[in-house]
Amino acid sequence: MKAISILGSTGSIGCNTLKVVEHLGDTRVVAMAAGRNMPKFAAQIAQFRPELVSCDDGSCAENLERELHSYGAKAPRIELGPNGLIAVASHPESETVVSATVGAVGFVPTLRAIEAGKRIALANKETLVMAGELMTTAAVKCGAEILPVDSEHNAIHQCLRGETKNEVRRLILTASGGPFRTKTKDEISKASRAEALDHPNWKMGEKITIDSATLMNKGLEVIEARWLFGFEADRISVIVHPQSVVHSMVEMIDGSVIAQMGVPDMKHAIQYALTYPARQENCTGSLDLAKIGSLEFAEPDLDRFPCLGLAYRALKEGGTTPAALNAANEVAVGAFLADQIAFHRIPEIISNIIDAHVSTEADSIEAILKADEWARERAIMAVSETAVAV
Amino acid sequence: MKAISILGSTGSIGCNTLKVVEHLGDTRVVAMAAGRNMPKFAAQIAQFRPELVSCDDGSCAENLERELHSYGAKAPRIELGPNGLIAVASHPESETVVSATVGAVGFVPTLRAIEAGKRIALANKETLVMAGELMTTAAVKCGAEILPVDSEHNAIHQCLRGETKNEVRRLILTASGGPFRTKTKDEISKASRAEALDHPNWKMGEKITIDSATLMNKGLEVIEARWLFGFEADRISVIVHPQSVVHSMVEMIDGSVIAQMGVPDMKHAIQYALTYPARQENCTGSLDLAKIGSLEFAEPDLDRFPCLGLAYRALKEGGTTPAALNAANEVAVGAFLADQIAFHRIPEIISNIIDAHVSTEADSIEAILKADEWARERAIMAVSETAVAV
Repeated sequence: MKAISILGSTGSIGCNTLKVVEHLGDTRVVAMAAGRNMPKFAAQIAQFRPELVSCDDGSCAENLERELHSYGAKAPRIELGPNGLIAVASHPESETVVSATVGAVGFVPTLRAIEAGKRIALANKETLVMAGELMTTAAVKCGAEILPVDSEHNAIHQCLRGETKNEVRRLILTASGGPFRTKTKDEISKASRAEALDHPNWKMGEKITIDSATLMNKGLEVIEARWLFGFEADRISVIVHPQSVVHSMVEMIDGSVIAQMGVPDMKHAIQYALTYPARQENCTGSLDLAKIGSLEFAEPDLDRFPCLGLAYRALKEGGTTPAALNAANEVAVGAFLADQIAFHRIPEIISNIIDAHVSTEADSIEAILKADEWARERAIMAVSETAVAV
Repeated sequence: MKAISILGSTGSIGCNTLKVVEHLGDTRVVAMAAGRNMPKFAAQIAQFRPELVSCDDGSCAENLERELHSYGAKAPRIELGPNGLIAVASHPESETVVSATVGAVGFVPTLRAIEAGKRIALANKETLVMAGELMTTAAVKCGAEILPVDSEHNAIHQCLRGETKNEVRRLILTASGGPFRTKTKDEISKASRAEALDHPNWKMGEKITIDSATLMNKGLEVIEARWLFGFEADRISVIVHPQSVVHSMVEMIDGSVIAQMGVPDMKHAIQYALTYPARQENCTGSLDLAKIGSLEFAEPDLDRFPCLGLAYRALKEGGTTPAALNAANEVAVGAFLADQIAFHRIPEIISNIIDAHVSTEADSIEAILKADEWARERAIMAVSETAVAV
């Protein structure tokens, strides 16, 4: 039996991870962490019986024990908050840590898992965006393997099997284009919360769905790809592909393009990360290209989707700028989801913060968290100014 | 400098091989064979200066010497006919033999090259169709590597890099659908020579272009794939893809589909076969998916294109039946190109011959050539009967 830990078990990736664990049959969950959704967490614990769990705070833990009681399940060891996440991430028995919390909260626990030499099934893209160099350097040093769970990076990982890095010309990330792919600039700027959450292909969490609507998601993925695969920004392209069937591609120096395709179901990438280098029978549907009929491709429009350009800019500036970009984006998206700002304010707020950010080297947790906090505060200020103005 | 031999240098693959050799710069042609096109052959010899050449017969050789004289080039050693092909294929200096003759004539020379342990860049698909088991068994025994130059098999070879055979669910060969993809059964049956030669995507020789119009080309490729990659008929699918951008795909047991894409230019596969396992900068254009815009896929229609079904049938029957299928097809296509029979007679003639063929084990050159000759004679008879009736 393989043993795994899950950070963020009640989220979309976490729930799908548990479905994959059920399907595989040879994997057990030794530790899992969730935030505040205790009814769901209790149900998961009752089913998967981890040895250690973690939740946000003491009041969550009380709820959790109550919920577990109703399942007739004995509570496992419960840890709290950031230290609880770290305890789950570094549980001595777990070989693989599924890092699936949303946002910056997963950063330190994931780094601890890397330092413990565990395999990381990485769905928390902010971790690499904020601290890509730190994380990947630590992974090399500690012999920890990072396997991307994002469908795009997972696809690139698959395309690179058997290939040599210096024979790669460029990585090509596909982008569905999100719900506003065919909308005008004006329509996009006035988009409602419901419209932005209506993603055409993928069922995901709210934050990442908004990131898909702004194309910031693809921008963050460009930064993530830079660190996962070691290619500079000018060797990472984005192409719009509304069907999300081609999950991503790699162009080799001889002009050959290797693509990975599949049904748009996150369970595939999760299973791949858990079983790699082996492949096992899928628990997802299989691809029927003849039934799909047509796959479309187009260049991304940086004018209508400025967030993508902002992410490239942050990657090129380097240092702590990607961390600042990520923090500003988290706050701006949160404010949009709370109906505090209009959709078009998301890139504006981020752009202003990048303009004002003085980038320093991203060579320590402190430097990165400092940039994160600075950008977060500034973004909150920008939101409150706008909120007053609205 | 790598040294190569070319069987069929004046054909489409041969000419493209020479362009790739020019591009690579680190490869020299030590021996080459052509049939009867001596003006072209002389120009190639004058440029590439092989040590040994071969042509069909003594009258060709006289023409060749005359042509070479006009280039002021000294004639290299000239061999003739089948023995000449074998001499070129087994030239002691050549490490790789590009097997690019059309039809059964390439069979024995390619087998000799395999027995000499050379790498085979295989464009002559009839060789594997007739004698797949014999060739691949010999290749394993003699340590000869067969690298497919057909874009489809070359694509599958690329998709399988880094993959494990028992984790493959099926191979998926793409078919452009040829010039008659959207035609009715009735329109196809009356198609003219010019219509059948008007391939939408690929510039190829006449025989293979007609095979593309009947989908027999794809059927032969299914048989070829069976031997190149070791999968039974029910694990090799065909999908129609008019743009010929996805050259072929592999579906893994976890549902992942790995595809290889590129511009439709045979130089890519040739270069891949010559430089493998390394990749080098392409001399072809690069793929621009956004410019292409849309890739379409559909199931093949075995009613309008019965040749594809005939090839599957021959593969399942096994033994010498694929050799008989191939021979019957060569004669029928030749007769169609000579305006002796109507297009719809091609599958009819092949079907009748397969019905009448008594399959034996394809475990010797003699058994295979006997089936080939039997089917060829019978097909010539069928053609002459039809030709009289027309």
